[in-house]
Amino acid sequence: MLSFVNDYSEGAHEKILERLMETNRESLSGYGTDKYCDSAKEKIRAACSCPEADVYFLVGGTQTNQTVIDALLNQYEGVIAAETGHVSVHEAGAIEYTGHKVLTIPPKEGKISAFDIRRYLETFYNDANHEHMVFPGMVYISHPTEYGTLYSKQELEEISALCGEYEIPLYLDGARLGYGLVSEGTDVTLADIAKYCDAFYIGGTKVGALCGEAVVFPRKTPAHFMTIVKQHGALLAKGRLTGIQFDTLFTDGLYLEISKNAIRTANILRKAFEEKGYEIAVKNSTNQIFIILENEKMEQMKEKAAFDFWEQAGENHTVVRFATSWATRESDVKALISIL
Amino acid sequence: MLSFVNDYSEGAHEKILERLMETNRESLSGYGTDKYCDSAKEKIRAACSCPEADVYFLVGGTQTNQTVIDALLNQYEGVIAAETGHVSVHEAGAIEYTGHKVLTIPPKEGKISAFDIRRYLETFYNDANHEHMVFPGMVYISHPTEYGTLYSKQELEEISALCGEYEIPLYLDGARLGYGLVSEGTDVTLADIAKYCDAFYIGGTKVGALCGEAVVFPRKTPAHFMTIVKQHGALLAKGRLTGIQFDTLFTDGLYLEISKNAIRTANILRKAFEEKGYEIAVKNSTNQIFIILENEKMEQMKEKAAFDFWEQAGENHTVVRFATSWATRESDVKALISIL
Amino acid sequence: MLSFVNDYSEGAHEKILERLMETNRESLSGYGTDKYCDSAKEKIRAACSCPEADVYFLVGGTQTNQTVIDALLNQYEGVIAAETGHVSVHEAGAIEYTGHKVLTIPPKEGKISAFDIRRYLETFYNDANHEHMVFPGMVYISHPTEYGTLYSKQELEEISALCGEYEIPLYLDGARLGYGLVSEGTDVTLADIAKYCDAFYIGGTKVGALCGEAVVFPRKTPAHFMTIVKQHGALLAKGRLTGIQFDTLFTDGLYLEISKNAIRTANILRKAFEEKGYEIAVKNSTNQIFIILENEKMEQMKEKAAFDFWEQAGENHTVVRFATSWATRESDVKALISIL
Amino acid sequence: MLSFVNDYSEGAHEKILERLMETNRESLSGYGTDKYCDSAKEKIRAACSCPEADVYFLVGGTQTNQTVIDALLNQYEGVIAAETGHVSVHEAGAIEYTGHKVLTIPPKEGKISAFDIRRYLETFYNDANHEHMVFPGMVYISHPTEYGTLYSKQELEEISALCGEYEIPLYLDGARLGYGLVSEGTDVTLADIAKYCDAFYIGGTKVGALCGEAVVFPRKTPAHFMTIVKQHGALLAKGRLTGIQFDTLFTDGLYLEISKNAIRTANILRKAFEEKGYEIAVKNSTNQIFIILENEKMEQMKEKAAFDFWEQAGENHTVVRFATSWATRESDVKALISIL
Repeated sequence: MLSFVNDYSEGAHEKILERLMETNRESLSGYGTDKYCDSAKEKIRAACSCPEADVYFLVGGTQTNQTVIDALLNQYEGVIAAETGHVSVHEAGAIEYTGHKVLTIPPKEGKISAFDIRRYLETFYNDANHEHMVFPGMVYISHPTEYGTLYSKQELEEISALCGEYEIPLYLDGARLGYGLVSEGTDVTLADIAKYCDAFYIGGTKVGALCGEAVVFPRKTPAHFMTIVKQHGALLAKGRLTGIQFDTLFTDGLYLEISKNAIRTANILRKAFEEKGYEIAVKNSTNQIFIILENEKMEQMKEKAAFDFWEQAGENHTVVRFATSWATRESDVKALISIL
Repeated sequence: MLSFVNDYSEGAHEKILERLMETNRESLSGYGTDKYCDSAKEKIRAACSCPEADVYFLVGGTQTNQTVIDALLNQYEGVIAAETGHVSVHEAGAIEYTGHKVLTIPPKEGKISAFDIRRYLETFYNDANHEHMVFPGMVYISHPTEYGTLYSKQELEEISALCGEYEIPLYLDGARLGYGLVSEGTDVTLADIAKYCDAFYIGGTKVGALCGEAVVFPRKTPAHFMTIVKQHGALLAKGRLTGIQFDTLFTDGLYLEISKNAIRTANILRKAFEEKGYEIAVKNSTNQIFIILENEKMEQMKEKAAFDFWEQAGENHTVVRFATSWATRESDVKALISIL
Repeated sequence: MLSFVNDYSEGAHEKILERLMETNRESLSGYGTDKYCDSAKEKIRAACSCPEADVYFLVGGTQTNQTVIDALLNQYEGVIAAETGHVSVHEAGAIEYTGHKVLTIPPKEGKISAFDIRRYLETFYNDANHEHMVFPGMVYISHPTEYGTLYSKQELEEISALCGEYEIPLYLDGARLGYGLVSEGTDVTLADIAKYCDAFYIGGTKVGALCGEAVVFPRKTPAHFMTIVKQHGALLAKGRLTGIQFDTLFTDGLYLEISKNAIRTANILRKAFEEKGYEIAVKNSTNQIFIILENEKMEQMKEKAAFDFWEQAGENHTVVRFATSWATRESDVKALISIL
Repeated sequence: MLSFVNDYSEGAHEKILERLMETNRESLSGYGTDKYCDSAKEKIRAACSCPEADVYFLVGGTQTNQTVIDALLNQYEGVIAAETGHVSVHEAGAIEYTGHKVLTIPPKEGKISAFDIRRYLETFYNDANHEHMVFPGMVYISHPTEYGTLYSKQELEEISALCGEYEIPLYLDGARLGYGLVSEGTDVTLADIAKYCDAFYIGGTKVGALCGEAVVFPRKTPAHFMTIVKQHGALLAKGRLTGIQFDTLFTDGLYLEISKNAIRTANILRKAFEEKGYEIAVKNSTNQIFIILENEKMEQMKEKAAFDFWEQAGENHTVVRFATSWATRESDVKALISIL
């Protein structure tokens, strides 16, 4: 069966496994204090052109969003996010579980704009009763978004400036950051993200690691963040597991290099869909392709390839997602195309 | 200044204060175990035609919503509510503070229908990823709603049947319940509410009491609810304060009797608004009148009468609210009409 | 039945009820913004010799402790308290419910000393693993304590200095503060408390009010404290209820005046117990008298007077508590003495 | 430097890394639904002689304790644990963070007895005010304890019977379970644990895995446990990472086999300490050896070997811990002994 279900179906890039093997019997200190974590942090700081940044390694995306958002918010604050944001929909209420409301804005293709965020903030502060409401305490965006779309540098800059004006942090969920950074046409670099965001994470789980997300605070870290991580059950005893993975991913540009495979294979597939007249639900340039299929056609395709249900689109159609990744083989893409 | 700002501007019905005086030096047990609480509970059970009901007295509306909803939900569940519901907007995130998401549905004039709730539930359970989402664990409605509208008996019955089908409780926020029960044209009685809801509260604060809301569980009470109340900081040491108030309000039908004053005065005022050509924003038959005013006109009126800002309505208009209550004097209504 | 069960068995001082009556039909703004709240705050600031203090009115003691402690702590912090402190034992886990651990110290007669707190803090910071533990983020003391004992001015000063050294706030639970302030032999005034504490509350519920506690922040208030209060379900719509009560209690020294009745009657009773050879479990000079009774004797006394079980004291004895209050009648004390 | 600091200093048993390699490019479903998780669960059920058990894989110990305890408790309940229990001390308040109090009992060498737990429960239910207190809702024990001691089968049986009597679950923290199961003199098997406990976890992190703990519910699983895991940020996208590790550990008895290395090396070391006249702080038969050292001696030893500070023991002495593990080399033990 050809699998395009998601971008976390395979294990890890082999270089990571090799490094885990090589270093396996070294006796290292725990909780992210070992030399591989140190080295990985140093390389990430360099990749972000941000020598002062603080870097922490957590295990998964929901955990990272929960811990970082909880650490950045005051107790009377919530987080502004797109209605379609991962924190709004697919984290089983992990944000609310920490006591914070997700304050949603209707997105355009997964994105929210400085204009819309400003309107939210102005409406809030103009409301005479706003002290009886949840204060908007930060902004959450994902890049790429849940629909594979990307912010432009100017859009990031505008949102960042707005957050600065209101003195609330901007946090970027980079679960698929690698795929965004090497996408054709993007003008956003890792250094830009470090410049415009107050916190963000570089996704490992979906970009070549077994697990792990690297949280970056470019300028200011919440006090006692390590203890907060522990309190959320998110502190790995064998920090080496994430440290070695990120150290490998950020050696010789491996992270971006393997990301390119996802984009290259997605582009081949995207072009084939277009040529064969499939309707694209949301246009994007990253590794997720959203197609509107007639339900009958969808059932036929299911027999030969695995892809993901996304949402109903009226009575007879469904939006489905085909995802490529660092691990996608071009031969599989060709095989898929041959049956489209 | 004529005041129509809200329905909690005055103290309490005088009979309540008199009873507080008369009983003041009696030595009573604490935490809601005194004889006045017992008597009030008995009278409320009778008024609800529900001899098996459990009744608890809490202090305020947000506190009651927070405590009851938290007690009724499992930890992985959220509460379905109208986007305009009090719990969604004006409780400073008190529900999320307890770890639960408010799952919102776009309302029609403040109300949500069995049809819309069913669609929400079906969409949720049809979503292959729903185990990664917040389970809808109960339904919250307010009656009257935040827009003064009322559910019909049939609408309540439908929502109740749907909740039964999905085995989730139906909870009704009765902050202004008295005003709903005596509204012209309603076919919903207290007994109906006890029949169709799994939990509800009878509002005291906005209907003649200094403070206090009577929570009713008609059939089944969450285990150790008193301890849960204490845990939320909601257990009054001098339970007599709420017991005596509700005992008075439910003696000789006082609760409904004083509610009628709000409706009578609202109806006079509503008619005047209509006759003078004011645009009603949301039609209802209870004690809140929502009017769309030109901003200039609004500023003029502010000099003579106090009313409440509700929301912007385009560039030049504003929705404002005039509220009557158990304490509204007909003379004030007439004085207001004379300046419309 | 003679009742010495507790200090919240009666209603309110009559002057309070009279003022509630007199002001009842005044139309006042809600949520603590009315003129009586303002006046009460001003009088409390004067009584504390602390013109810059912020004052808020909450409804009950557990609610106040929960809200203030949660507002003062960072998320990775807990509150240091005596093992016997109200927050440790009798609040149904209300502090933990907000996510914070109560860090307990074995007390001496209900009190904890600067010496013991310092040892706790030093041990914590000397522990190489303390980043995996709950940071001690504030100190909670009650005055009078749960055993009726009082801190001396020097003891308060020492604890305050220690807290200053560690930059953690000192919070004083004054549920029975009136009884402490007028106790014979105390050298602690309200101004001292405002000087040494970063937050405290002046108890109304147990000292003449129907309900209500006045929270005082002498120097610095947590940001958006009103919203935090709302979030905890602790914001009273009719703020007048607490405002008028505290305005009355702090007019012409009523609060201290009525407190004296509790001390005078307690002293008569205490002397009688001593003269008749009863064993005092914990010596104090306030309104709670702890006596060790043989169980048989206890059962006999129960027939004639109501008092409170405190704790077992071996096989055949029990510690019981007799409490006086602002409402205790000297005739009842005499009647009790006659049957000792 | 010889390292005896802890039992999580090395990576994973090589067979695990080999299996990760071999299976790396297989396309597997996420979130613990892959075939390796299934296989691992099946093997664990067999090892527990408990074919009906539900098994889940989480990432780390604190996370597991937090998630399982939160899932097992009602909101008004806390967890009974030893004062020295991991959940009481070294989890940064992760339990309280979920709203639950840790109800502590003074342990004997890290253990709590059915006798002491019963006394706690009886005292609680005999207290007339217990509805104002945190209900004891479950019992937490660790096996081996934080002091390396072990429960006997009879002790487990007694605690289990007591929990049954009070209808509260018994939960066993098996972070080092392997080391307990193969310890000399223990009469407790995995099947016993499955028989006597309502929930427990088999520790991977400290017994040969890179990360991962296997939670077992022998009879009854909390409803929607997977969603609760997600809500706590504890659900691994690439469930294969834990699945493959536990599948390997439970193939051909590897888990117990590698555990024996820790015990064998610990026994050699323990004997050497005793022969050389060192004072053992807590006697046990597992992989942690607690020694009381004069501070001067401790400083000398630090230059040659790494071990863990445990606690002060008066002015001039310190309790330190030497830990062996599945990875400890006998040559290192001999080298250490040569410098004792």
